[in-house]
Amino acid sequence: MTDATVPRPAVLLLSGGLDSTTLLALAHKQGFLLHALSFRYGQRHKLEIEAATRSARAYDVARHVVVDIDLATFGGSALTGSGDVPKDRALAVDQSIPVTYVPARNTIFLAYALALAEVTGASDVFIGVNALDYSGYPDCRPEFIESFERMANLATRAGIEGRRLVIHAPLIRMTKREIIELGVTLGVDFAATTSCYDPAPDGAACGRCDSCQLRLKGFAEAGLTDPARYAPAAAR
Amino acid sequence: MTDATVPRPAVLLLSGGLDSTTLLALAHKQGFLLHALSFRYGQRHKLEIEAATRSARAYDVARHVVVDIDLATFGGSALTGSGDVPKDRALAVDQSIPVTYVPARNTIFLAYALALAEVTGASDVFIGVNALDYSGYPDCRPEFIESFERMANLATRAGIEGRRLVIHAPLIRMTKREIIELGVTLGVDFAATTSCYDPAPDGAACGRCDSCQLRLKGFAEAGLTDPARYAPAAAR
Repeated sequence: MTDATVPRPAVLLLSGGLDSTTLLALAHKQGFLLHALSFRYGQRHKLEIEAATRSARAYDVARHVVVDIDLATFGGSALTGSGDVPKDRALAVDQSIPVTYVPARNTIFLAYALALAEVTGASDVFIGVNALDYSGYPDCRPEFIESFERMANLATRAGIEGRRLVIHAPLIRMTKREIIELGVTLGVDFAATTSCYDPAPDGAACGRCDSCQLRLKGFAEAGLTDPARYAPAAAR
Repeated sequence: MTDATVPRPAVLLLSGGLDSTTLLALAHKQGFLLHALSFRYGQRHKLEIEAATRSARAYDVARHVVVDIDLATFGGSALTGSGDVPKDRALAVDQSIPVTYVPARNTIFLAYALALAEVTGASDVFIGVNALDYSGYPDCRPEFIESFERMANLATRAGIEGRRLVIHAPLIRMTKREIIELGVTLGVDFAATTSCYDPAPDGAACGRCDSCQLRLKGFAEAGLTDPARYAPAAAR
């Protein structure tokens, strides 16, 4: 922050998951005036929006915008279509692209963030992508974020006016364990976050999809118990 | 085309205006199997979608997808907000950004096009942007398109799999006159296209907004009469 008395506006992509909520806590601590942006995108995990709304309130954002986008009409992903979310599989160690990859999702999310940055006068955009846990997703890699930032500075009024847009992805090289440990130091209420790709109707996490497995592994490695609510093992 | 017997799929951004309809005719002639993509984005000129649908049928596209996006919730442009569309002003010769600029619009449109390209297996995306007539729009410049293409190849499955995504913007350095002349040689029905930022309820163009003025100037320079329907001068 160049001037501690006037908070700088920033746009923050908020899914309601563990990563973006930790990101929210981090950007809030850095003193930004936050405009949180969430998406309903035909995904199964609509509980994310409720979690995002709770976190947005908890961190006193200037505005929380929820945008409906209909990627389901395009098809192409287990998270937006009618395909089954994979369960109980070994966490991917290869470089193949998971079936839960949503085509061009982060490009679309960041494009909307750019529009919101333009109208709010923000030069800073925060996104909670992670390259380690999602190594199969092309749009979670550092080189994608860097390239998007270059493009963004050509795409917008900010670029023409000499104001430099910065895409912040501070979690991108962290392990899930490190993100959880950062969240703990920032006081994040992880019970209020949701990560499951396929939660029960009552909101309980399945504990078996890739995202649940990654999360549970992260808490285990940090020597902590995940406070999120999981479906009883018998019901899984 | 590398193989004349198997049409290559391509995604084409289609607004129903003069430029994108000429683009459609051009890509159709080049033999691509076209997936046309249009947007309802809270704009006043909803007649564009009807024009786009007519043109999509006329050029026998494989699929015409219309996506609703709500840029109006963001504010920031005369085309999506409640501000007045400027009339009768001298066409801009300076580099200032017009009030009709929609923040990050082409970035958002191209991001969706990228998603559709992913699910249809297309490596080619067509966009009818023009740098000369819209010199004040940052996202109509060649350097923006080139930068988006670089980013797109990092963002998607195509890039990871070594298939190269190409963003085609063949009209980008053409004058309106040249685009009209190209359209004429391709047999485009310009009467079916719509360009007006503020048409009358019956669909007649105002003849006075920047877009109408540019169009009328282009037809005049080409020595042609614009077949589009304009409001009577007395009603303007």
